Amino acid sequence: MNLRYKQCVVVRGDLKLSTGKWCAQVAHAAVSSAERARYERPLWYRAWLLEGQRKIVLLASGEEELMALYKRATELKLPTSMVVDMGLTEIPPETLTCIGIGPAPEEMMDRITGDLPLF
Amino acid sequence: MNLRYKQCVVVRGDLKLSTGKWCAQVAHAAVSSAERARYERPLWYRAWLLEGQRKIVLLASGEEELMALYKRATELKLPTSMVVDMGLTEIPPETLTCIGIGPAPEEMMDRITGDLPLF
Repeated sequence: MNLRYKQCVVVRGDLKLSTGKWCAQVAHAAVSSAERARYERPLWYRAWLLEGQRKIVLLASGEEELMALYKRATELKLPTSMVVDMGLTEIPPETLTCIGIGPAPEEMMDRITGDLPLF
Repeated sequence: MNLRYKQCVVVRGDLKLSTGKWCAQVAHAAVSSAERARYERPLWYRAWLLEGQRKIVLLASGEEELMALYKRATELKLPTSMVVDMGLTEIPPETLTCIGIGPAPEEMMDRITGDLPLF
């Protein structure tokens, strides 16, 4: 099977969260970005689901790098999401924790996230 | 704001995965269960999104407990998903890693997952 679509979630490596909290943040980004794709890029969304919703979690150095990635992805008109935690538990209020990009064709995703290490 | 809907992802505590791998598994469960809700319970789905898609990640002892939870949730006609990893990286092929339940009204969710510890 030739996987052509993928979604990436990029997290901030400078934040210290528990594994469970990270999972919830990443899931939030994934659902929101998928929901955006469903409206804006329904064919990409459907193809991605049919392919088994390939998903990769990557690491950025901090808020600045995350915002730069977000800006590039929106300039390329890819579906995106941004997760800002309410900070009720482990981190200060209104902390940007991660972003979701895609689902989108793999070659477009790799232009933005291809150099990032795995989380 | 009175949060009335939530989604839970329950992971297997007997598996050892990296944080990034857990995040991807949980995000997979969240997207799939949300997609099921969108078809089967569109009002729940919409309300949950509008409320900020509250999401909790919980811990089960192993595959047996996870399957029992899945069975109860489907008996109550809640939207569910099951994540079986292809096992290309960290674990054996076709390993059940986690399940998604909901979004659904909080009181229904708590009847199934109310006693589980946070991941």
